[in-house]
Amino acid sequence: MAVSFTLEKECPGTGARAGILHTPHGDVPTPVFMPVGTQATVKGMSPGELQSIGARIILSNTYHLYLRPGHELIRAAGGLHKFMNWDGAILTDSGGFQVFSLGAMRRIKEEGVTFRSHIDGSEHTLTPEKVIEIQEALGADIIMAFDECAPYPADRDYIKDSLARTTRWAERCRAAHRKRDQALFAIIQGGMYPDLRRESARQLLALDFPGYAVGGLSVGEPADLMYEMLEATVPLLPRDKPRYLMGVGTVDHLAEGVARGIDMFDCVLPTRIARNGMVMTRHGYLTVRNRPFADDFRPLEEDCGCYVCRNYTRAYIRHLIKANEILGLRLTTYHNLHLIASFMAGIRESIINGSFPELYRELKARFGRGKED
Amino acid sequence: MAVSFTLEKECPGTGARAGILHTPHGDVPTPVFMPVGTQATVKGMSPGELQSIGARIILSNTYHLYLRPGHELIRAAGGLHKFMNWDGAILTDSGGFQVFSLGAMRRIKEEGVTFRSHIDGSEHTLTPEKVIEIQEALGADIIMAFDECAPYPADRDYIKDSLARTTRWAERCRAAHRKRDQALFAIIQGGMYPDLRRESARQLLALDFPGYAVGGLSVGEPADLMYEMLEATVPLLPRDKPRYLMGVGTVDHLAEGVARGIDMFDCVLPTRIARNGMVMTRHGYLTVRNRPFADDFRPLEEDCGCYVCRNYTRAYIRHLIKANEILGLRLTTYHNLHLIASFMAGIRESIINGSFPELYRELKARFGRGKED
Repeated sequence: MAVSFTLEKECPGTGARAGILHTPHGDVPTPVFMPVGTQATVKGMSPGELQSIGARIILSNTYHLYLRPGHELIRAAGGLHKFMNWDGAILTDSGGFQVFSLGAMRRIKEEGVTFRSHIDGSEHTLTPEKVIEIQEALGADIIMAFDECAPYPADRDYIKDSLARTTRWAERCRAAHRKRDQALFAIIQGGMYPDLRRESARQLLALDFPGYAVGGLSVGEPADLMYEMLEATVPLLPRDKPRYLMGVGTVDHLAEGVARGIDMFDCVLPTRIARNGMVMTRHGYLTVRNRPFADDFRPLEEDCGCYVCRNYTRAYIRHLIKANEILGLRLTTYHNLHLIASFMAGIRESIINGSFPELYRELKARFGRGKED
Repeated sequence: MAVSFTLEKECPGTGARAGILHTPHGDVPTPVFMPVGTQATVKGMSPGELQSIGARIILSNTYHLYLRPGHELIRAAGGLHKFMNWDGAILTDSGGFQVFSLGAMRRIKEEGVTFRSHIDGSEHTLTPEKVIEIQEALGADIIMAFDECAPYPADRDYIKDSLARTTRWAERCRAAHRKRDQALFAIIQGGMYPDLRRESARQLLALDFPGYAVGGLSVGEPADLMYEMLEATVPLLPRDKPRYLMGVGTVDHLAEGVARGIDMFDCVLPTRIARNGMVMTRHGYLTVRNRPFADDFRPLEEDCGCYVCRNYTRAYIRHLIKANEILGLRLTTYHNLHLIASFMAGIRESIINGSFPELYRELKARFGRGKED
């Protein structure tokens, strides 16, 4: 198999692990945060800028690319890597999350999901087989099984049926999948019920996928509930396979996820808030578009060495954002993704040199919340 | 004086010249096209990207920066170069063109112009002295005298009064200007009347400015009329001083301006049309957002060696533009500015090696119009 995982180090005091995800498009040190490139571009960033913040893997979206420009076009272009000029690794999600987010615009059956496009209202059906066909055309290094991302809150009976269907869909995805240089990961569901999380994990583990995602979290539930679900799920997963927590991208959730054994993360938050003039720092959020920063000639973050913080002031970036200038959101996006990348690199380093428990304690004190030791 | 001009070569068969504009922020080979950074940023481009296309000088706008973020803020930031992280040369216009473009929202008196802000409707008055104060605070290498950019068409009496006022304002600008490391250029007006163009030039030449702009052209008149006005004006200008044609930025107008002795140009067109999904090529315009390019895997311009054309296809760029992705307009903007920069570099090279008349003939044949030899 062209995608594999090497476990390099496990933290004795916590669940944290450092590893390397080997892909046809290079090695990815883990734990890793994957910037989100929904429509075959990480909003505001060029591929070169992604490389310069150390990104080795990005995520793109099956649902969006299927609707526009269409997977056959991307196949004709030579695949997603070539289409978007990105030489690093790519993971495509299955579209499950997006389709289920459409709410009243979709109908779920055993065969698949029928929905209306958010672009033009046209009707489409995604089935497990179709989702694999699309992802094979896109050609990402890692592809995801079609799942139902159940709403929160949802009652137990609904979740029980839903996770069983997700398992049947995962099996159909595996049966349909032919492309040998792609790894197909399954997605564990189970809502906010620890026993159903375990049940979903058990069912999918029996099918022996090369990697497992935990889905249906970070959907509005309290953070402690998310951590509880991770604790119910992750210990069941094999040590030698990568684990991916979907939709998580704040520094506190990332640290807590790592401490519970997660290797991979993705989230639109760092790039989305950047476009609204909000930046992430090691000391919290800073809404640089606000008035107090109008004449603040300090960098976004004083102890940050990124391209943005070395060259631009809060006053300039605020001006750009107020004036609706593209460079403004380019700079905030770059800073946020750099921050997350260097935060994750620091965590990885600490796992390898044995200081993660200390770092984790410091981070928790700083965040002022999280699991007690 | 910290800004000076060296004339390197004159084309015997045409009015074309090659020179070097020496500024406190580096030498600028001429003829040159200056990308427009209205609000202290060239829309969509980073300073590093501007350098990579060979830009040595950019233009920024007094009117816009006075209103937002305010010239005192930029002074406090250490000047415009530092504020926007641009080490190359900067020219600021005087705000004359913008203020007069406000139409019914402004009143002209001998003292100056009172107008309402396009941002919040607040009332402001720009006088020659105020315009110099603002431009000194911004700290550009080259600043422009406050002028009236008269409407087109306009009757002869109006233009006659207007150009005389522009001369009086230029004199007041010169009297107010104190900053020795900035060059103050005057702007020749005169509408579409050759004798009034000559009259404006004579009045301003008597005041002995270090450089002269031709303003009030490219305002909707036929191209031949613009060329006629240049022919009436440029021969009166001293050989040893730079000449700047304001608001011109299509390849045919650039070539025709150079052939008539112009050294400097600026225009929002290359960047503005880029944001609408239209790119410039040596063979004409290409509206890459249009349907026929959906599955066109060629570069924007097949014989172009720019970063964009080496790495991206029309199909990808069209996808980005249709999906409202920022990278789309970044790529079209980069290509257009690269095209103009390399077009001007080729013209300069041909002037130096004596082949400009030949190149000019070829270009005119390609454009299918322009002055006959």
